[in-house]
Amino acid sequence: MKKLPVLLAISVTAALCGAPASAQFSRPESAIKYRQSGMFLMGQHFSRVAAMANGRVPFDAKVAAENAEVVAFMSKIPWNGYVKEAPGGRAKPNIWTEQAKFKELNEKMMDDAAKLSAAAKTGNLDALKAAVRAADATCTSCHDTFRGS
Amino acid sequence: MKKLPVLLAISVTAALCGAPASAQFSRPESAIKYRQSGMFLMGQHFSRVAAMANGRVPFDAKVAAENAEVVAFMSKIPWNGYVKEAPGGRAKPNIWTEQAKFKELNEKMMDDAAKLSAAAKTGNLDALKAAVRAADATCTSCHDTFRGS
Repeated sequence: MKKLPVLLAISVTAALCGAPASAQFSRPESAIKYRQSGMFLMGQHFSRVAAMANGRVPFDAKVAAENAEVVAFMSKIPWNGYVKEAPGGRAKPNIWTEQAKFKELNEKMMDDAAKLSAAAKTGNLDALKAAVRAADATCTSCHDTFRGS
Repeated sequence: MKKLPVLLAISVTAALCGAPASAQFSRPESAIKYRQSGMFLMGQHFSRVAAMANGRVPFDAKVAAENAEVVAFMSKIPWNGYVKEAPGGRAKPNIWTEQAKFKELNEKMMDDAAKLSAAAKTGNLDALKAAVRAADATCTSCHDTFRGS
């Protein structure tokens, strides 16, 4: 039977309420790529919603709702990739020394993303704008504290 | 008002049944990164389910169901990233000359992933094994045809 590479087995149980699955990585690079992939996809879909909220593209309630739903799902993904065995990428070391603060912001992002999706489903542009602003502020707050260059 | 970079605006409507959102990319590199991120996340979670189905790690029905649910969601993501304006990465050129075949396999993957999630939710290991085999065969079939080195 073919064996998985297990030079370094990183296994963490889902530490966050709402995280969809426990994370297991065969090597640190996979954990870094995992969280970066999740962040990128969340950002791509968030930017499509934000572009409508900011008036840069015409508001289309259906498209906004579809994209916001992806944001809500993707908001649960990246956090399990921040395992202490895998520093690097743009992750600042204080992620692992200020875990309570980091996790609080992770949870806030998931909460904001769920609210964004709910707001988008109403089809009300003002509600969407408010939800985009709130989520954007949470992104910025976490990036300012925990994301390096 | 800050403007998005729109040197190259790529906008496609969701061409696939089940695709969660239309895709819009400011540049080809973003489309490539988008599909690669989606594929990587789908693969990570699929490998966790497959490891249980193949007996490499102990079967845990809850963990299998959580991971399979992520696979089902992620299976809808990558395809919108294969816009003709963004060749490259591991995408072979025949993706754009054999669109019907490519899309058929995209849809089969989404269908297989949905069945995988449904099978995982039953908690029946034999059902999970069969669903893993089917999805794995679809992955391989598409990669053999449309993925380069």
